[in-house]
Amino acid sequence: MYLPSAVSRLRNKYTRYVVLWFIVLLSVPHLLAQKPADDPLPSWNEGKTKSGILAFVADVTNSNNSHFVRPEDRIAVFDNDGTLWAEKPVVEGLFVLSRLKSMAEKNPAMKNTQPYKAALEGDIAYFKDAGLPAILQLLAKTHSGMTEEQFLKEAKNFADSAKYPKLDVPITDIAYKPMVELLEYLRTNGFQTWISSGGSIDFIRVVSPKLYGVPPQQVIGSTFELAWVTNNGRPELLRKPHIAFVNDKTGKPVGISQHIGKRPIFAAGNVRSGGDIAMLEYSGSGSTPSFQLLINHDDAEREFAYSEKDSASLNAARQHGWHVVSMRNDWKQIFSSQQQQAATLHKKCAVAK
Amino acid sequence: MYLPSAVSRLRNKYTRYVVLWFIVLLSVPHLLAQKPADDPLPSWNEGKTKSGILAFVADVTNSNNSHFVRPEDRIAVFDNDGTLWAEKPVVEGLFVLSRLKSMAEKNPAMKNTQPYKAALEGDIAYFKDAGLPAILQLLAKTHSGMTEEQFLKEAKNFADSAKYPKLDVPITDIAYKPMVELLEYLRTNGFQTWISSGGSIDFIRVVSPKLYGVPPQQVIGSTFELAWVTNNGRPELLRKPHIAFVNDKTGKPVGISQHIGKRPIFAAGNVRSGGDIAMLEYSGSGSTPSFQLLINHDDAEREFAYSEKDSASLNAARQHGWHVVSMRNDWKQIFSSQQQQAATLHKKCAVAK
Repeated sequence: MYLPSAVSRLRNKYTRYVVLWFIVLLSVPHLLAQKPADDPLPSWNEGKTKSGILAFVADVTNSNNSHFVRPEDRIAVFDNDGTLWAEKPVVEGLFVLSRLKSMAEKNPAMKNTQPYKAALEGDIAYFKDAGLPAILQLLAKTHSGMTEEQFLKEAKNFADSAKYPKLDVPITDIAYKPMVELLEYLRTNGFQTWISSGGSIDFIRVVSPKLYGVPPQQVIGSTFELAWVTNNGRPELLRKPHIAFVNDKTGKPVGISQHIGKRPIFAAGNVRSGGDIAMLEYSGSGSTPSFQLLINHDDAEREFAYSEKDSASLNAARQHGWHVVSMRNDWKQIFSSQQQQAATLHKKCAVAK
Repeated sequence: MYLPSAVSRLRNKYTRYVVLWFIVLLSVPHLLAQKPADDPLPSWNEGKTKSGILAFVADVTNSNNSHFVRPEDRIAVFDNDGTLWAEKPVVEGLFVLSRLKSMAEKNPAMKNTQPYKAALEGDIAYFKDAGLPAILQLLAKTHSGMTEEQFLKEAKNFADSAKYPKLDVPITDIAYKPMVELLEYLRTNGFQTWISSGGSIDFIRVVSPKLYGVPPQQVIGSTFELAWVTNNGRPELLRKPHIAFVNDKTGKPVGISQHIGKRPIFAAGNVRSGGDIAMLEYSGSGSTPSFQLLINHDDAEREFAYSEKDSASLNAARQHGWHVVSMRNDWKQIFSSQQQQAATLHKKCAVAK
């Protein structure tokens, strides 16, 4: 106000320039950072698997394109054990053991009754001999004879406290970071992400929202029979000791059809037992474009290296043109706290040798 | 421009007033119409059922309230036949008949083979005698022995062309308008709306997106066994002639648990066979606030009036405090093209008398 008008105008002009330059300068680091921040799959190495995923998603979400798929039909299904988290050992097996231990504490007779005795003592030879019926007996003992509510509580207690033996981390830390990024990337592009696992549906539902962002109603799995009964005047869902449905191998397309009622356009499984072949075939057998991903566990250093006796999954991948993930080459990082886990794994491996 | 400045200014002032008044006048009908336009349930008469629904939704969606329910837990389930659309006769029964007729055209021997003969001739006495096994045989004949894809195509053809006999309208016109409004209202308030029906899951999935805004993956129903088989080198889902799961009565809480993995906080069913009692009990037996709706078909004039032999559903409603809908009193309108249908119904009733 006390400045002469001309000076004031000059000063205003000056200020405008300074402000403008300030904005430009502030933008530089942001502009430089643009590229990595935009990468939706930062834990994936560049290569044909990653570029294949990106190209497929770009293809089906482009409404000017003949391959466009409406959001309501963008269904993606993922196997769980070995596809979304580690399976050496399978986490639900740890849950069975933990349940058996706490049951045996209350009922010590179990310690001398087979097959519980063998399970509690880690007697693998017994199970090689007794086979599937003995394993089903363990499952029935630990997964039924209680209300659904009690089972969910037990599973939650386990998930909140259990450690994954070989990696020595909480079991909630064994999810594969690249797959969690992939789930998120697909959802950002209008996909509905589902899990289709051979494991117990309710067990996975306890961990899937937190670990994978997948709500309980988007989990498909094996089921025990349930009965609606009244106990002391209170109606409740009771878990019966019979398996109602096995969501594995040729059961996977069935489970998907019953739960979703649509053919998934994206499916991901892994090499181990051929458990995901039918699901991947189902996803690829429609008339619309689709994408199949098969994870190969070839990273003994950062995770575990294992294969299939008959190589059926890899053969099917070759036959159908599925995209095979080499964990060693395609994934920059496997778990989110990579350093710690790699170190722990190394240590454990060293001890084992 | 040719007017003197003072006149021009006056004229501008005048124009401004006229424009202002014009805007005010235009707003009047809009302001008057405000209230009904804001009503999310315009086909519901004012009364304790409607106000109960509104109060419940306000209660669980208010985050400052101890009754607040997070959006991911706002699960609402609806029975279909008699709850979302008319069930006199049940539409799927019409589909069975239509399928039998077209099958008998290709295979005339069916016309002389029971139970198809009785079904094609409308011989109700035969079914009273032969009972459930004969009905299951009709279901198996019309619902299995084909691929899942073929079945969905048959169901779609039927849904696109079939008429509802007593009302003489396309079957896609027999949805209850107040219930379609309720589904939409719940979704607007963050609810996930599901169907839980005794009917075939795939049959309902064909109509649910268009009629109710419910996608296939939010439909629960009775199921036939499916098998993943390879036919002429092409893998496909084959429908087997065995019922895998009956989603009725005590089966409903089981189906809901398997598909959703959460207890619904809102459930709606109807009086006819007691088929929804367990589902409504399940919804009401949690520790969080919940709402149960039971539709009573008491409107012979605009729809159909019928009741339950043992009144089990109404007795349960009284015992548990469920909200009972009187179609006659609570619903302003039943179908969307009310006039036509009421007239048709009247005419048919008159003929029947």
